[in-house]
Amino acid sequence: MNNFTLHERLKNDTFEVMDLALCRVLLMNDSHFPWLILVPMRTGVTEVHGLTREDRAVLIEETAAASRAISSVFSPDKINIGALGNLVPQLHVHVVGRTREDRAWPGPVWGSGQGAPYVKEELEKTLSAIRQALQGQGA
Amino acid sequence: MNNFTLHERLKNDTFEVMDLALCRVLLMNDSHFPWLILVPMRTGVTEVHGLTREDRAVLIEETAAASRAISSVFSPDKINIGALGNLVPQLHVHVVGRTREDRAWPGPVWGSGQGAPYVKEELEKTLSAIRQALQGQGA
Repeated sequence: MNNFTLHERLKNDTFEVMDLALCRVLLMNDSHFPWLILVPMRTGVTEVHGLTREDRAVLIEETAAASRAISSVFSPDKINIGALGNLVPQLHVHVVGRTREDRAWPGPVWGSGQGAPYVKEELEKTLSAIRQALQGQGA
Repeated sequence: MNNFTLHERLKNDTFEVMDLALCRVLLMNDSHFPWLILVPMRTGVTEVHGLTREDRAVLIEETAAASRAISSVFSPDKINIGALGNLVPQLHVHVVGRTREDRAWPGPVWGSGQGAPYVKEELEKTLSAIRQALQGQGA
């Protein structure tokens, strides 16, 4: 499609879930939170307003699809969405399921401390459930 | 238009900038950061995926317009966008200009400590510059 390359840090911190029309969907390697990261497969874009209008419309639909997937699989109390990029310039959107009992509540997840890496079985179960939920909405 | 009422806490923490087609634009009363909050004028919506697809397309365009306005007036190093809502359930989107020298860098602004309220002259200058920047893009 294009010369899209995932930023090294995103690659190191996540597992691949699937590619949607615009975004590569990643699962953050932190089993404390159901935490997806959507990376528009466009080279050199660092801000939402740096995308085309057409890509932005797709980005927010894929963000909504990721939110619905997390909601249906994990029934969180709240979805948190964030595009920060202070450390990793490649544009990426966090979609995180939050519960009132999670370690960062009601604060943000970013900078909330050490993640808890997935163990193999839990990872496979989580990836499979999220893929099914994303595919189930025709995303 | 409808019975939209701004959440009490958003009202207390901000100043009104202007209404766009979908969102009321607010300026956070924290002069440390150029910090806008966009509140879709829809009653009872708490999540991005709770909006209609049409409203979502407008929301991301208005978010991009707010980002461009902050960029043009303040020349930040990065724009941070976030929809959290862990404390205030009414759907709202933060758009914040960040610099490498700001008090929270590279962490998130949410939960980063006490805000610095605007003094009158600075507030009027800031509101005027942001309104002009938003209007200049036909937002």
